[in-house]
Amino acid sequence: MPTADDFRVRQEPFYQPQDKEIELYEAAYAARLPVMLKGPTGCGKSRFVEHMAWKLGKPLITVACNEDMTAADLVGRFLLDAGGTRWQDGPLTLAARLGAICYLDEIVEARQDTLVVIHPLTDHRRTLPLDKKGELVAAHPDFQLVISYNPGYQSLMKDLKQSTKQRFAAFQFDYPDSTLETAIVCSESGIAADLAGRLVELAQVGRRLKGHGLDEGISTRLIVYAARLIGQGTAPADACRMAMVRPITDDPDIIDSLDHAIGAIFG
Amino acid sequence: MPTADDFRVRQEPFYQPQDKEIELYEAAYAARLPVMLKGPTGCGKSRFVEHMAWKLGKPLITVACNEDMTAADLVGRFLLDAGGTRWQDGPLTLAARLGAICYLDEIVEARQDTLVVIHPLTDHRRTLPLDKKGELVAAHPDFQLVISYNPGYQSLMKDLKQSTKQRFAAFQFDYPDSTLETAIVCSESGIAADLAGRLVELAQVGRRLKGHGLDEGISTRLIVYAARLIGQGTAPADACRMAMVRPITDDPDIIDSLDHAIGAIFG
Amino acid sequence: MPTADDFRVRQEPFYQPQDKEIELYEAAYAARLPVMLKGPTGCGKSRFVEHMAWKLGKPLITVACNEDMTAADLVGRFLLDAGGTRWQDGPLTLAARLGAICYLDEIVEARQDTLVVIHPLTDHRRTLPLDKKGELVAAHPDFQLVISYNPGYQSLMKDLKQSTKQRFAAFQFDYPDSTLETAIVCSESGIAADLAGRLVELAQVGRRLKGHGLDEGISTRLIVYAARLIGQGTAPADACRMAMVRPITDDPDIIDSLDHAIGAIFG
Amino acid sequence: MPTADDFRVRQEPFYQPQDKEIELYEAAYAARLPVMLKGPTGCGKSRFVEHMAWKLGKPLITVACNEDMTAADLVGRFLLDAGGTRWQDGPLTLAARLGAICYLDEIVEARQDTLVVIHPLTDHRRTLPLDKKGELVAAHPDFQLVISYNPGYQSLMKDLKQSTKQRFAAFQFDYPDSTLETAIVCSESGIAADLAGRLVELAQVGRRLKGHGLDEGISTRLIVYAARLIGQGTAPADACRMAMVRPITDDPDIIDSLDHAIGAIFG
Amino acid sequence: MPTADDFRVRQEPFYQPQDKEIELYEAAYAARLPVMLKGPTGCGKSRFVEHMAWKLGKPLITVACNEDMTAADLVGRFLLDAGGTRWQDGPLTLAARLGAICYLDEIVEARQDTLVVIHPLTDHRRTLPLDKKGELVAAHPDFQLVISYNPGYQSLMKDLKQSTKQRFAAFQFDYPDSTLETAIVCSESGIAADLAGRLVELAQVGRRLKGHGLDEGISTRLIVYAARLIGQGTAPADACRMAMVRPITDDPDIIDSLDHAIGAIFG
Amino acid sequence: MPTADDFRVRQEPFYQPQDKEIELYEAAYAARLPVMLKGPTGCGKSRFVEHMAWKLGKPLITVACNEDMTAADLVGRFLLDAGGTRWQDGPLTLAARLGAICYLDEIVEARQDTLVVIHPLTDHRRTLPLDKKGELVAAHPDFQLVISYNPGYQSLMKDLKQSTKQRFAAFQFDYPDSTLETAIVCSESGIAADLAGRLVELAQVGRRLKGHGLDEGISTRLIVYAARLIGQGTAPADACRMAMVRPITDDPDIIDSLDHAIGAIFG
Repeated sequence: MPTADDFRVRQEPFYQPQDKEIELYEAAYAARLPVMLKGPTGCGKSRFVEHMAWKLGKPLITVACNEDMTAADLVGRFLLDAGGTRWQDGPLTLAARLGAICYLDEIVEARQDTLVVIHPLTDHRRTLPLDKKGELVAAHPDFQLVISYNPGYQSLMKDLKQSTKQRFAAFQFDYPDSTLETAIVCSESGIAADLAGRLVELAQVGRRLKGHGLDEGISTRLIVYAARLIGQGTAPADACRMAMVRPITDDPDIIDSLDHAIGAIFG
Repeated sequence: MPTADDFRVRQEPFYQPQDKEIELYEAAYAARLPVMLKGPTGCGKSRFVEHMAWKLGKPLITVACNEDMTAADLVGRFLLDAGGTRWQDGPLTLAARLGAICYLDEIVEARQDTLVVIHPLTDHRRTLPLDKKGELVAAHPDFQLVISYNPGYQSLMKDLKQSTKQRFAAFQFDYPDSTLETAIVCSESGIAADLAGRLVELAQVGRRLKGHGLDEGISTRLIVYAARLIGQGTAPADACRMAMVRPITDDPDIIDSLDHAIGAIFG
Repeated sequence: MPTADDFRVRQEPFYQPQDKEIELYEAAYAARLPVMLKGPTGCGKSRFVEHMAWKLGKPLITVACNEDMTAADLVGRFLLDAGGTRWQDGPLTLAARLGAICYLDEIVEARQDTLVVIHPLTDHRRTLPLDKKGELVAAHPDFQLVISYNPGYQSLMKDLKQSTKQRFAAFQFDYPDSTLETAIVCSESGIAADLAGRLVELAQVGRRLKGHGLDEGISTRLIVYAARLIGQGTAPADACRMAMVRPITDDPDIIDSLDHAIGAIFG
Repeated sequence: MPTADDFRVRQEPFYQPQDKEIELYEAAYAARLPVMLKGPTGCGKSRFVEHMAWKLGKPLITVACNEDMTAADLVGRFLLDAGGTRWQDGPLTLAARLGAICYLDEIVEARQDTLVVIHPLTDHRRTLPLDKKGELVAAHPDFQLVISYNPGYQSLMKDLKQSTKQRFAAFQFDYPDSTLETAIVCSESGIAADLAGRLVELAQVGRRLKGHGLDEGISTRLIVYAARLIGQGTAPADACRMAMVRPITDDPDIIDSLDHAIGAIFG
Repeated sequence: MPTADDFRVRQEPFYQPQDKEIELYEAAYAARLPVMLKGPTGCGKSRFVEHMAWKLGKPLITVACNEDMTAADLVGRFLLDAGGTRWQDGPLTLAARLGAICYLDEIVEARQDTLVVIHPLTDHRRTLPLDKKGELVAAHPDFQLVISYNPGYQSLMKDLKQSTKQRFAAFQFDYPDSTLETAIVCSESGIAADLAGRLVELAQVGRRLKGHGLDEGISTRLIVYAARLIGQGTAPADACRMAMVRPITDDPDIIDSLDHAIGAIFG
Repeated sequence: MPTADDFRVRQEPFYQPQDKEIELYEAAYAARLPVMLKGPTGCGKSRFVEHMAWKLGKPLITVACNEDMTAADLVGRFLLDAGGTRWQDGPLTLAARLGAICYLDEIVEARQDTLVVIHPLTDHRRTLPLDKKGELVAAHPDFQLVISYNPGYQSLMKDLKQSTKQRFAAFQFDYPDSTLETAIVCSESGIAADLAGRLVELAQVGRRLKGHGLDEGISTRLIVYAARLIGQGTAPADACRMAMVRPITDDPDIIDSLDHAIGAIFG
């Protein structure tokens, strides 16, 4: 049986606040409101929740949602043991029992119908019925549910239902402004500020193509990738092509535009 | 083997009647009619059934329906034990045996075909055939089936069949009127009536957008969320943005409209 | 191992004949013809088969069909036991062995392809091959198969195949005429004939809306529900709204029309 | 382990030849050609194969095909036993080992992809590879595969592939001519020839509606049903409505036409 | 554990070469190239691979592909045994270990995604990773993979991916020319050459209807069927109708045309 | 329990660099960036990753992705053992523990939703939560994830999500230029440079048909196949038809064009 200590965040995760999100999260946690983190890929949602778990001193249990995930994967199941079947709690049940923050990452990937199992945990009941076991788990007072969600993927097939949405307080994330993003890139890769600024400049060119041939902007994560390749001695233009252009598109015209921008910025 | 006491509602759940629904439910229970609760997300359907179970002194077994739910999840299954297979009642069977109120929450999420298993329990037979076990369970005299159902989700794919619908007496729920809703928000969050009234006013702006860009109105639950954030010291405008606007929509125009209303009400 | 006695209908189920269906059923049973009961929801098909099982003194095994139902759910399967796998008959096999009437309720819900397992039982062979067990079960001389079927649900996806249909003699059911229906409502609820007649009158208004906004008429069962609520002291208009209008539709115009009819009849 | 004797046809099944199908089948069996029986519902295909198995003195193993049927259902599977897993032959493997006629009834119901397992048994190889067991079964010299198939159901989704079809010699069945059909009805029900002739006349009216509102004609089986009801004392018109009209259609116009024909023939 | 000897082809399978396919296959085998056999139903692809396995003296393991076939069916799985789970090699793994020719018959029937498991066996790696067992099987030097494939079935849903196709050397098969086909029919059935020639003539009439109402031509196999029925004493016209016309089509016009051709050829 | 040594690449795999991809990969590995290899079928992606694993002296664990692959196939599952259930690591978990390069080949074949399990391994966390076991695996410092991906297959159904793409540095592969490709063909088959050059010339004719009737160009692998057949004594034109034309298309016009090119080049 795992304990809360198995899920502590040991070291302070680096996190650079963009606004008053830390204070607002503290208020939401104090009121034990379920929380929804909205924003594009690679802008720091997962890192924020880790940071908050560390700051609040609560265990963190993360679930990467996927379409094969069944209610049993969240809640638990019977396993066959030497002495017959034995119940094993799923991560959601474990978090409810231990008083952890349960983080359902990329929740739109899960089948929305599966997600109704979180409903009794996210209203005044704060309970989780284990139908298969005939047990009603009352959540530990420290338990909180956090979900992340990328509105850019929203579609008829993959949107949260209102009956799910209306159980969360929401935080909207976006890419940091260029000064802050440059500072983050320096801090994460150790390269010089001027070089980091030029990488951020390239990312901003790419972000302007969103909706004009790109499904999503170039994330902070990819800028850091390029910076780390440069830190390994790779030429900046090679690093940009490899980390900031080739991964995000197969469209030859978009690749040309971005390669041209690389030439202009680093040429 | 769980007993009826495991499913008692221990404390009176707060419930503010909107109309004569308590008396009508008592009549329906006295006649042991199956009951359907209709209404939008977050208007208090689940709380009402808890309240009634408490008032009538009957155990309550809740099932959050989902599309993966099979007939076996409701009725029971054979589990493998040290001494071979062993039958385990599902929540519906348990409720029928113990004389509990069985509450199938968000029933339209379940596959309608699965739901035919409730038919023999909801007509003059009041029996549940356990085909896999070769047993015919006669329901305890106290047993009642309650379902909840949000007509806003009704679609060709997700509607109850008439052969299911015509087994229930129906209660129609809606958001409370503004005086009552203000009182509920005060009672649930402890904030001042004037502030609560302004939150209700904002919710009513949002509800008027239903069908004009919003799929569903802002629920009483979200108003209470905002009120509880305010109770934690969050500025009212921040609390409204976070609890009453960002969770329900990703549409920038709707967000702008609602943020503007926040400015007008709290500015 | 269950016996025929476990499936006897102990008390005479109340059944009011509408025509010569009892005699015709007796002839069909005497010839051991498989029988199909056709008709709308809540008009008494299930009760008729119970009544006939009681009258003929034969055990009755009912299966509520659903789309998840596999051939194995009807025929049987191997279960894991202390000493390895053990065969367990399904309800159809059990009925064939015991000489019961096997009633497949709402057969169109089952996957039509699954239903081919009933074919060898419904022609001159009267056998059921248990492929998985390598056994050929010859039906008991008293065995009969009965299915129910609502033509209103008939669709390309959910219709019986001719190769299934052409194995049955068919009975067509409909709502009783108003005199008979009033008598049934009185008998089932104990309310006065005049009041019962007015409930039947309202039902007939609703039935005229079938195909004009309603998928199905108001069933006798719902009239009885309203009558039983009235018997509990509920006002007739409240009882009608709750039992005869709200369950069958979410359409505000239809609700208005029917509420208006309630006012006219009970006002 | 079942033996060939478990699958003998003990009594001569009544079969009235329509043409030289018995001699042709004997030739096909002598050449051990796989055989396909084509024709509408209820015209006697299953009875013909039973008759031939009896005539040739070979065991008969019948499988009612359905869409849930997997290759394992035909070929066999490992079962869990006290001493671990144990292989159990499916009906096709059993027939190949015992030298039985294996009759796959309504083969278009099976997923055509599943049916490729019969391919090695139906060409010069006459073998069945049990992939899961690592065994290659050589068919017994007496083994023959027979399939039945209703071309009326043929559709894009449900047609046999040419690579399956081109492994069979085919017999085309149809309803018998009226003299022969009348004789069959008399023989099966014991009613008088004149009355039987009138039932056949009604069936022929119905068969002319095929493609004009009816998917399939009225089968010989349903005529026999009506005759047997008459033999139980049911009035001919009631018997016809119940056994020859109501089972095959829900269309009120077709029902009217056929009821009118009943009036004309029996009035 | 099966050995290579269990899969030897014991007797020389009759095979009449059409071109230099035997020499080309020997070269492909010498280079251990994976081989693809393309061509219509019943033209001798399976027999060719058997012949080559016999000629090269290599064991042959055949898998009839179907859509239910999972990667585990090819590669192997854990079975439950008295002492816990035990790994059992699938036919592909067995062939790779034993140095057999593994023949995947009708490969387009398999889900193309399943087929990626053959990729590491069909490039320079010649290995098969057993992910579930954590083992990397290096193929025996004699191992070769052969697939068959009917381009006539090619469709958007059922085509091999280029990443699969570009792993094979391909042989194109077709019906033999009439002299050769007549010789094959004589050899396989023992009927006279003149009669065999007339059967081939009829097949050629049918093949000209391909694309004009027939999905596929009449195969050599069906000609041999007709010849064998004639050998059993069946009249040639009956044999042709039964073996060469009725199996391949249900279209009355095509049947008429072909019956007319039978009359012209044998009349 | 397998060890890192079980997955070492023992011999240097032949690899001919096309550009500075070796140095760039070394930088990406030094920064432990996840890597994506993009390019057409048969251009050497798999061989490149093998080469790099050998060069870096790291174990290599390859997974051929397919649509049936579940998250459990990557991560691990509980197996039933003599003493109950026992956990078995999947290849991804094994690689994370052992510090191997984990190569997910043809990643677009996998269900994209399944792939979210790689997310926590491919950002700053470098962890893999085993939800079913309640364990959080921290990746070994040597662990790296590599995926391959053919943009030619990109479609709405089968594209990587941005939230997956933006976790990788990307390498773009293509067919080598003709001088290099000729050298590779000579080296792999031992045929003369002039002959190899003519095979490359034919491949280039085929590649120009991409998008004009061919879905994909003729790969280097198929040129090597043809060369190896020639090495076995096959005539060049036969070898080209068999290895470079018949495998890639069934279209008679394309086959004619390419056969004509063979005549022109080798005639």
